[in-house]
Amino acid sequence: MVKPRLLTPGPVAVPERVARAMTRPIIHHRSSEFVELFKGIRADLQYAFQTQQEVCILACSGTGAMEAALCNLLSPRDRVVVVRGGKFGDRWAELCTTFGVDPICIDVEWGRAVDPADVRKAFDHHPDAKGLLVQASETSTGVFHPVRALAQVVHMQPDRLLIVDAISAVAVHELRMDEWGIDALISASQKALSLPPGLGFVALSSLAQAALSRSRLPKYYFDLARVLETQRRNQTPFTPPISLLYGLAESLKMIVEEGIDRRVQRHEVMARVVRGALSAMGLELLVNDSHSFACTAVRVPDGIDGKVVQRRILEDHGIRLAGGQGRLKGKILRMGHLGDLDVLDMIAAISAIETALAALGYPVKLGEGVRAATELNHELGFRGDSA
Amino acid sequence: MVKPRLLTPGPVAVPERVARAMTRPIIHHRSSEFVELFKGIRADLQYAFQTQQEVCILACSGTGAMEAALCNLLSPRDRVVVVRGGKFGDRWAELCTTFGVDPICIDVEWGRAVDPADVRKAFDHHPDAKGLLVQASETSTGVFHPVRALAQVVHMQPDRLLIVDAISAVAVHELRMDEWGIDALISASQKALSLPPGLGFVALSSLAQAALSRSRLPKYYFDLARVLETQRRNQTPFTPPISLLYGLAESLKMIVEEGIDRRVQRHEVMARVVRGALSAMGLELLVNDSHSFACTAVRVPDGIDGKVVQRRILEDHGIRLAGGQGRLKGKILRMGHLGDLDVLDMIAAISAIETALAALGYPVKLGEGVRAATELNHELGFRGDSA
Repeated sequence: MVKPRLLTPGPVAVPERVARAMTRPIIHHRSSEFVELFKGIRADLQYAFQTQQEVCILACSGTGAMEAALCNLLSPRDRVVVVRGGKFGDRWAELCTTFGVDPICIDVEWGRAVDPADVRKAFDHHPDAKGLLVQASETSTGVFHPVRALAQVVHMQPDRLLIVDAISAVAVHELRMDEWGIDALISASQKALSLPPGLGFVALSSLAQAALSRSRLPKYYFDLARVLETQRRNQTPFTPPISLLYGLAESLKMIVEEGIDRRVQRHEVMARVVRGALSAMGLELLVNDSHSFACTAVRVPDGIDGKVVQRRILEDHGIRLAGGQGRLKGKILRMGHLGDLDVLDMIAAISAIETALAALGYPVKLGEGVRAATELNHELGFRGDSA
Repeated sequence: MVKPRLLTPGPVAVPERVARAMTRPIIHHRSSEFVELFKGIRADLQYAFQTQQEVCILACSGTGAMEAALCNLLSPRDRVVVVRGGKFGDRWAELCTTFGVDPICIDVEWGRAVDPADVRKAFDHHPDAKGLLVQASETSTGVFHPVRALAQVVHMQPDRLLIVDAISAVAVHELRMDEWGIDALISASQKALSLPPGLGFVALSSLAQAALSRSRLPKYYFDLARVLETQRRNQTPFTPPISLLYGLAESLKMIVEEGIDRRVQRHEVMARVVRGALSAMGLELLVNDSHSFACTAVRVPDGIDGKVVQRRILEDHGIRLAGGQGRLKGKILRMGHLGDLDVLDMIAAISAIETALAALGYPVKLGEGVRAATELNHELGFRGDSA
């Protein structure tokens, strides 16, 4: 028997108790039971998003939530600075072009974090720019962009907006939206919330909420002013995905139980253990400076086909990793460590990667990876409730 | 014990086997397992939609699918004829206004079907109109608009498009998209497909597909040309709602097993039994001419508060009906009979309504409703596999 293990950076495995919650009988969304369910979700979402603001819940994928943020906060011919350092940075630029917003792109090498000084320069050259579009965690490379420092640059001018795709960063990284000055914090269900895909989220600062009425881009399904107004009455403008909301309530309960700080710490430890182990195996990490706690990208050794390694790990060990996207296709493997996973899951995966590489003739010293991982875990001292 | 029964015209109860399918472990959407799953879904969706065309699958509610059809087929300042005879007709008009499309509204009394002659007149007055926006089943009133006759009127001019919100009509009514000339057939998961909300669908005729490239409204998340191109490779542009797709595969399997003609017949029998029973109780139906097989609206008797009846039926008998929407709030009750329900479910509900009305002092002759329903069911001769 080979047990299937999904270790891609989204979608992720859904915990049993969340999966079970989703099978509860469907209720009508204009009922008092729905109001009770929704009230609890709204409060727990604020905790998970580390904000006092209302978190808009949308029935869509993460891209839908990105589009919603853009179409509600900007207008045609607005200029915005865009950090383009991966596939999802590209997506911001494409969204701008599609909706007639003018993107000033800062092209960052895939695998590097943006330098806040470059963002400052872009704003100096374009003082009319309305804000910054960036990823917190760029899932295609495993980079974490320095959101806090970027917030300072953006808010050197009072009305500029910081719009952050934190799809794989919410409930993974520390992101103090209110304190740091993030104006739109975007996420989705299939990452650290450990739900199936199908829900998108956008939290808006007071500054962003004030900007809603100025935006001249048309929106109906994604009208966030309407979403905000409706949610405050514990309702949604359109029929909400009830079963996913059941799951969301349960998964948020798990986040509350774990505690957000501890949860961030767990993700950090997983990321550090994985990085240490891969390095100990002699593999080269894609990201050296500012790495995401959501996933780790490792370069495929020269002379080895990324697809072949990936398939070997899947077929022999049941572990599904992700490959590279866009220009990194075939060149990297990405291992997700977000959601309902712990360090021991990482160590098991490292063992599988070692074995698969050895089987393919790569000169790996079997056991170096898992030894390094075990040592690191011991050193970092993260051990569930006894810590 | 009072067993909860959801009899609203969407969302609907999810059959056990569908709910169970949705708990299967999440797979990655770029895997061969996904391709297999998706291939089967695509084929069975064509069967359920009674079309040879590809059915676009979107992660959104029904309104998102309506918006997608509009934004992909029309352009700013285009003129379209809109049938406005209920809350969802209003929605078409609102969507038009939001996206700069000019709606020529035919206002139809709520509870009446549109007269195709009026649509013809509207096109005669506005020969430049690009098409017609209409509901097949107007869920807020329980009217079925004469789609087939409307198709003939629309296609008196070759390039005009018939865009049909069939959210509560697909897999309920006969809708021969290809044969009749429906250009966009829109639906959603939480109606006759017996799934939780969260999936929207748009099937496009060849004429509509040719119109995609002419549309000048911006779209990214809802870009149907991209959806079509991606689906043909058994992929989706963005992370799809995996658990809902598991459920969809299972629920489509149930439709294939039942057979679409027999399924339509079952819905027709449920509608006729419910209408006959309510009339026998001395209640007044909202719709007299062209009624939907998805739901039945009945007027609340004078001197009785609709909300009170609704609550009594819910609290004493566990049956959730829907009330009126918009201008019909408090004036009608709506009973859904779509999805995984049969005539006996209807008879149970009729009995509950009789009892609740009697308890509230309405002069109902107890038992007249269920007697009429039983007689009608006998007469119509619909009895599962032995028929």
